Amino acid sequence: MIMQREASRIDGLIGEVLDDHLRDAVASLGDLAPLLQGMTGYHLGFLDESLRAVENAPESRGKRFRPALAMLSCAAAGGSVEQAAPLAAAIELLHNFTLVHDDIQDNSPLRRRRPTVWKLWGEEQAINAGDALFALAHRALFRLRGDVPAETLLDIAEAFEQTTLEIVSGQVVDLTFEEGDRVTTADYLAMIAGKTAAIVRFAAWSGALLGGADDEAAARYGAFGQALGLGFQIQDDLLGIWGAPEVTGKVAADDIRRRKQSLPIVCLFERVGPAERDSLRRIYAAPSIEPAEVELVLAALERHGVEAQVGALVRKHHDDAERLLGELAGPTASEPVARLRALVAQLAARHW
Amino acid sequence: MIMQREASRIDGLIGEVLDDHLRDAVASLGDLAPLLQGMTGYHLGFLDESLRAVENAPESRGKRFRPALAMLSCAAAGGSVEQAAPLAAAIELLHNFTLVHDDIQDNSPLRRRRPTVWKLWGEEQAINAGDALFALAHRALFRLRGDVPAETLLDIAEAFEQTTLEIVSGQVVDLTFEEGDRVTTADYLAMIAGKTAAIVRFAAWSGALLGGADDEAAARYGAFGQALGLGFQIQDDLLGIWGAPEVTGKVAADDIRRRKQSLPIVCLFERVGPAERDSLRRIYAAPSIEPAEVELVLAALERHGVEAQVGALVRKHHDDAERLLGELAGPTASEPVARLRALVAQLAARHW
Repeated sequence: MIMQREASRIDGLIGEVLDDHLRDAVASLGDLAPLLQGMTGYHLGFLDESLRAVENAPESRGKRFRPALAMLSCAAAGGSVEQAAPLAAAIELLHNFTLVHDDIQDNSPLRRRRPTVWKLWGEEQAINAGDALFALAHRALFRLRGDVPAETLLDIAEAFEQTTLEIVSGQVVDLTFEEGDRVTTADYLAMIAGKTAAIVRFAAWSGALLGGADDEAAARYGAFGQALGLGFQIQDDLLGIWGAPEVTGKVAADDIRRRKQSLPIVCLFERVGPAERDSLRRIYAAPSIEPAEVELVLAALERHGVEAQVGALVRKHHDDAERLLGELAGPTASEPVARLRALVAQLAARHW
Repeated sequence: MIMQREASRIDGLIGEVLDDHLRDAVASLGDLAPLLQGMTGYHLGFLDESLRAVENAPESRGKRFRPALAMLSCAAAGGSVEQAAPLAAAIELLHNFTLVHDDIQDNSPLRRRRPTVWKLWGEEQAINAGDALFALAHRALFRLRGDVPAETLLDIAEAFEQTTLEIVSGQVVDLTFEEGDRVTTADYLAMIAGKTAAIVRFAAWSGALLGGADDEAAARYGAFGQALGLGFQIQDDLLGIWGAPEVTGKVAADDIRRRKQSLPIVCLFERVGPAERDSLRRIYAAPSIEPAEVELVLAALERHGVEAQVGALVRKHHDDAERLLGELAGPTASEPVARLRALVAQLAARHW
């Protein structure tokens, strides 16, 4: 199973180029504060808990499809994978900054099968680790200097801030969802458009711009990324309830145990009658949840056909992504476009 | 007393120009997440706890000497105060991002005589508010586009990241100080060089660069800012113990009550003999502190002449700042240089 997981991650060259840039980013912290270098290096999967170097650990480095998307979009638009490496590193660092802070906010003890930064070094220091990753993300972005006109770099940097603000706003709204039970599907989709899809859209858009796409073509790459990002998040929501623990690395029905207001639960609340709603509300408002209640929620989800409903939405967004990519590529697809197609297919079929 | 405090803040034009830029930054969040706009607007002193607009509240907007320094340095180097407004807003937003996160880390209930963001909206949302302020800081910086060559703006942006990483590293080290009692004066001064002085140095350096200073002159402005920043922090440490509550807005001997490892305490530990050190260590390691113990620490500080020792260091740094400014200005000082001198004198004499 582990082999299958590793094989399904982004391919060799992209991973190596990205690693070089991420390692450089972390190394640049060494003179300032060794602990900061340690926490960020650990989170990115380059160090273990004792801050010893870890040589080959794709499992602890995440899926990294966002940086892969930026690099392949750059190549597909007429540039190269290598050219987009600083941009890809910036995107991966931005994503990881938000993960370190999210883990504090969600009180998550594990990330990528390892203890989270706050769990090892405390919440106070984990806030610092996230802040540093955000600054390093910008520094990585500015490494594009010289390879791209300064005005283009500033366009990308401005969009990078907008993307960040959309992610943070999505997280603000997501946290408010936990307090209420009146979340609609529309609310939820607007929230994940910010929290998850914005950075995927940015990755495709900025990669294409860097590769030479004009504004109109880059915007179409962005729309492709947006669809892919929405599909990715909703797939994540499905796996959070119905994913196989040995593949996801999470316990079964994890999102129900954590009482997460993910899309299947939002859909369920919209479908049930008053009596069932009251019973679900009690479960979602209580300070803890019993195994029998988890089974009760699972049974309600099955009774109302929620898995099929949400699964159809996942397919719709992945189909949209494929279609938008097809329109971009035209009749003769280049090798980078073929790799983008493979990435979409891989994400659409993922069970991890 | 309030009147005196208000009068000692930065003057009208600078404050108004800055307010416009800060308000614009906060307003730009409105479409994304009203709560995020509310939290950041509240922290910056534009809104009250109920998120109603506050018209005239210099008290809750902070000292703002960092943005004033950037604007006056720009004018002194040949530019104008107005020209540096986006830069000044970026610096003030960067500073406030670190304050929102620091308040969580230090568990501080009050900031500028009002409840802190985490106290009102919880730690999770306060992390988001800080993250958003950091992104807004960059966005404010990029507003310089068009008014300055893109390459100069990118130089400033790169230094902005370095400054941020120095601040965050300083905070990482400061938090580790709380766990140990082996902090030396040298450790402490290195820590505040990052945590406090880096942004003051950046303000003077970047303001001068924007105003037309060449690299060598801008570096000298930076050195002036560095001295001013060190003097500011050590003065803060003095006021944290000996400041008058009715002027500082904090309780008497606040830093002793909070068991803060500020410079006077670091100096005290270096001066005492083994028996006194053991007794102080016990006080600093206990989970809470009694009024009698606060008095005991105050008496030890007096016995060892720490206030005078630390006071001399404050004067030294302010004298350095004045001297460096004098060297920059040459024999005939312009009006902006005179205002910079007044700012240094005001900070050197402050009791708030």
